[in-house]
Amino acid sequence: MFEKYDVIVVGAGHAGCEAAHAAATMGSKVLLITMNLQTIAQMSCNPAMGGVAKGQIVREIDALGGMSGIVSDETMIQFRMLNRSKGPAMWSPRCQSNRMEFALNWRDKLEKNQNVSFWQEMVTGLLIEDNIVIGVKTALGLEIKATSVVLTNGTFLNGKIHIGEKNFGGGRTGESAAFGITEQLISLGFESGRMKTGTPPRVDSRTVNYSAMEEQLGDENPEKFSYTNTPKLVNQNSCWISYTNLSVHDELRKGFDKSPMFNGRIQGLGPRYCPSVEDKINRFADKDSHQIFLEPEGRTTIEMYVNGFSTSLPEEIQFSALRKIPGFENIKMLRPGYAIEYDFFPPTQLKLTLETHIIENLFFAGQINGTTGYEEAGAQGLMAGINAHRKSHELDTFILKRDEAYIGVLIDDLVNKGTEEPYRMFTSRAEFRTILRQDNADIRLTAKGHEIGLASDERLTNVKKKIEKSEELYKILGETKINPNEINEFLESHNSASIREKTTFYNLLKRPELNIENVKIGNSVFESIVNEYTKDELEQTEIKIKYEKYIEKELLLAEKLTKFDDLKINPDFDYENLKSISIEARQKLKKLKPITLGQASRISGVSPADISVIMLHLGR
Amino acid sequence: MFEKYDVIVVGAGHAGCEAAHAAATMGSKVLLITMNLQTIAQMSCNPAMGGVAKGQIVREIDALGGMSGIVSDETMIQFRMLNRSKGPAMWSPRCQSNRMEFALNWRDKLEKNQNVSFWQEMVTGLLIEDNIVIGVKTALGLEIKATSVVLTNGTFLNGKIHIGEKNFGGGRTGESAAFGITEQLISLGFESGRMKTGTPPRVDSRTVNYSAMEEQLGDENPEKFSYTNTPKLVNQNSCWISYTNLSVHDELRKGFDKSPMFNGRIQGLGPRYCPSVEDKINRFADKDSHQIFLEPEGRTTIEMYVNGFSTSLPEEIQFSALRKIPGFENIKMLRPGYAIEYDFFPPTQLKLTLETHIIENLFFAGQINGTTGYEEAGAQGLMAGINAHRKSHELDTFILKRDEAYIGVLIDDLVNKGTEEPYRMFTSRAEFRTILRQDNADIRLTAKGHEIGLASDERLTNVKKKIEKSEELYKILGETKINPNEINEFLESHNSASIREKTTFYNLLKRPELNIENVKIGNSVFESIVNEYTKDELEQTEIKIKYEKYIEKELLLAEKLTKFDDLKINPDFDYENLKSISIEARQKLKKLKPITLGQASRISGVSPADISVIMLHLGR
Repeated sequence: MFEKYDVIVVGAGHAGCEAAHAAATMGSKVLLITMNLQTIAQMSCNPAMGGVAKGQIVREIDALGGMSGIVSDETMIQFRMLNRSKGPAMWSPRCQSNRMEFALNWRDKLEKNQNVSFWQEMVTGLLIEDNIVIGVKTALGLEIKATSVVLTNGTFLNGKIHIGEKNFGGGRTGESAAFGITEQLISLGFESGRMKTGTPPRVDSRTVNYSAMEEQLGDENPEKFSYTNTPKLVNQNSCWISYTNLSVHDELRKGFDKSPMFNGRIQGLGPRYCPSVEDKINRFADKDSHQIFLEPEGRTTIEMYVNGFSTSLPEEIQFSALRKIPGFENIKMLRPGYAIEYDFFPPTQLKLTLETHIIENLFFAGQINGTTGYEEAGAQGLMAGINAHRKSHELDTFILKRDEAYIGVLIDDLVNKGTEEPYRMFTSRAEFRTILRQDNADIRLTAKGHEIGLASDERLTNVKKKIEKSEELYKILGETKINPNEINEFLESHNSASIREKTTFYNLLKRPELNIENVKIGNSVFESIVNEYTKDELEQTEIKIKYEKYIEKELLLAEKLTKFDDLKINPDFDYENLKSISIEARQKLKKLKPITLGQASRISGVSPADISVIMLHLGR
Repeated sequence: MFEKYDVIVVGAGHAGCEAAHAAATMGSKVLLITMNLQTIAQMSCNPAMGGVAKGQIVREIDALGGMSGIVSDETMIQFRMLNRSKGPAMWSPRCQSNRMEFALNWRDKLEKNQNVSFWQEMVTGLLIEDNIVIGVKTALGLEIKATSVVLTNGTFLNGKIHIGEKNFGGGRTGESAAFGITEQLISLGFESGRMKTGTPPRVDSRTVNYSAMEEQLGDENPEKFSYTNTPKLVNQNSCWISYTNLSVHDELRKGFDKSPMFNGRIQGLGPRYCPSVEDKINRFADKDSHQIFLEPEGRTTIEMYVNGFSTSLPEEIQFSALRKIPGFENIKMLRPGYAIEYDFFPPTQLKLTLETHIIENLFFAGQINGTTGYEEAGAQGLMAGINAHRKSHELDTFILKRDEAYIGVLIDDLVNKGTEEPYRMFTSRAEFRTILRQDNADIRLTAKGHEIGLASDERLTNVKKKIEKSEELYKILGETKINPNEINEFLESHNSASIREKTTFYNLLKRPELNIENVKIGNSVFESIVNEYTKDELEQTEIKIKYEKYIEKELLLAEKLTKFDDLKINPDFDYENLKSISIEARQKLKKLKPITLGQASRISGVSPADISVIMLHLGR
């Protein structure tokens, strides 16, 4: 009934969609299995993509040839570049999405890929032979064969939904949970754990009093995620901001005795940086107010997402507390918030390719690895899809280093440090964040994506031109000098010190108060130079000129810190004979099987002293 | 948490959507409760609306002010007027729909109605006081109050899905079944039964060999369902026709021992006129071939619906049999077909308003009444919504008679005759089908819809104009005479007998070989007359001229046959004292409580002799 596939992807959320698309684009015959074809690429939580560090990840996915950026661009209804006032390392693109269109758009993208086939059913187990996965088993008892299998089960594995004192099985509200896989993996020697996450109530926009809230508009000149030629956003929708207050908190506290979070019914650990509102009130008892961010779910729908109000308190409490928020005096709820507990597998059981140590050709991506966030899931899906494809075609592994991409940081963190609570990306997790910017993800990654057959030729041509042109401009600006009498008036008007002798534009642009935009208006020579370049090329050059020192310093540091990453270790290296390393290090090293000395050095429990010993042995 | 609503509608399929929209439009505060807001107005079965008799129902829903016609028009991808070659009583509009857009469009329509509120949850019971429903209870334990409640649970009540030897709970594939309501209704004295229906596998259009199939195009000049100003369809998609053959049948037979239909695991009766493919092979063992009708699910999606191949055989059998159909040699399945069993309540427990006899203010609509079909469900939803609204506002009942609408036939049949198997509408069920045409549903019903506050003023103005103008044209054509020398050449060229003296156009149009279209081309006097009228007005006039005798005869018959419908009976009439009627008649009359002698006469088991006796008593 089914051919033998190169790659089977189980689950069609952000991770599954990216995995299927990537493997198929590179040439694998892919079968995407989902419990419901109607719910491909659902945004289960808020209707938005990107944000701090997450926006950088979307740009990286796009630069490599993934689809999250394009789908986001084609279905967004608002765009903001966060942290514009800070340095470019912090600039973070974020959009509001049309929830329904996002899902339909992703489905369309997958359907247009000739190598993706679809099957609607629940996968209940894996087919394993000699510790190698060779396919999956379904609820109907079908056995479907493949060389590689990627599991992206999200919150569905033994999913259990909690609202107040009620709980019931489910992977999302109204959708069944999935059973069987956890039990089999445990029997194969995997460790598993429970995590929890939550979602806020949805409300009826017709019952919001916007005059009591603060409007948040999109950027005046909205940018986008993809480096490709996606359409420019026109007509943006607003978000709205309000705040909780003491009477909201009092109302919520009335339900604390029935809270599954507080009475022990929920055991899984939740996302620290995306806590439920009851958690916030409990942990920060001295805070009188928390922000509420009201997001539209689409262009016309009345449904709105109450960001900041994730909760599993009883629905009446959710309701009465909502009504005490300014602007929500007459609010009607459409769906209650809830918490969901689900199984995950500590990611220290994975290689840097996201293949499991225990079962060959089996890959995990997304929430099953203990992460949270659409972007983190999509990134893992992409990397698992790439490596599942390459493994099934006997090609080398594809790994991104910590100084190459946030995606590298994400996977390196997961695999070497593991995670006790849902892992979310932050800029602070990246030690090289001046290099890992949203503006240069194409420069960092597109050639790599192209080399493996994922990023198109056109993408490569574009990025090559971008690099070439911005280097050209950098050179020109370093060579072109301007006379004092031609620029001093302008400088004075911008509170910038006058020059006494001919000065290069390069030197002028180093001044914080000057930038390409204002110098262009103030000087016609400069204007005629920069008018030859695109917005992206100008931005790239400007960042290089302004942050040159920081970037160079970080590149140097990266070279130093990652030199151990070039020292390969045979994964089957015999740590048993290294008597002089600690017992903990030996256990961890044997389990995690690092492939470089750099990776070994980042495993929690492995000390610099241990690394010296290993290095000595490698030297021999 | 909730206000007291005028009407609560449980379920958001075709019945629930029409019910909520109708009650809200007339002024009721409505709460629409669904298990998943994401799946409002799903087309669970094939992506099409209308067809023989069903198309007439959609036109009637539209004429009354319902939305099924408008939603269909706005989301259709192909339109055909079936039976154009037959008399106008048989003309039946049918469209192919974009499944996803149909659902989104309906949701948008409901969201735009200020009186419709939404709540996502499972209803598990009714709140009853003194045999009057006063609200519903939900899975979370909420109690929501309302004056009237409409149940439209579709296939969800204790829904059980079968594929081969496997079965599992579910209301649709991937969606949970609903529990609690049946059990409570039984405890209140309701009878319930089990029915079953089925759905075919969905296939991947990229694997169809269209050259081996017959293309079915849409009409050259596509019409539409709604009498309102909905957009004209442009760019139509095709359907495709193929046939089963003996090797398909042989393949299917291999699974018969595992068929839940044949081994007794399915007990509910299925739709006779929409049987599973295994049923067809079994029942019509002498037929070598059955038609397969391949329908696109949207404009671009690869998913296609294999109409005529509904099945609950094991999925491998479904697959191997599909591959033997010409054009399907390389077919890939996306989802297997399945059968579903669900609870229904014999509709003889209802009044003609769709209110239950046992519990006041409780209304049932759709599959819960033992019907099948989106159109039948929508029509019942509309009528239940109207009557739930009117009951909650202490207004008179709204009932359509058998000579007024297919909707009248549908409900009259259900309530008086009941149904043992899923009830589907046919033109043959209507004794007055020359009157109940698709072209005159507005003339029949819009004034009624307007009177109750459902159809807009604009609709009424439009239909008044249509009536007026077509009567005017009818009169003009009956008065305007043409000279033989002005028309005989044209008549000869159309093989129509020459005229010898001045003749009215009215008389000429009675001739079968002549119609407005060709006379218009052949005669300029006629052309200048008819050019003043719209297509609808011309059609109306032409039908009146050509079918006048049939229509008059049927109107006369209707008058005769329905005169008993004007003889009211008090629903609490004491049949106990009517010693001279049969025991069966007495039992049925006491249970069904007919409100007119006409209704009493149509109850199965009540004989003409019984009716005479009752009439005698009413006369007193």
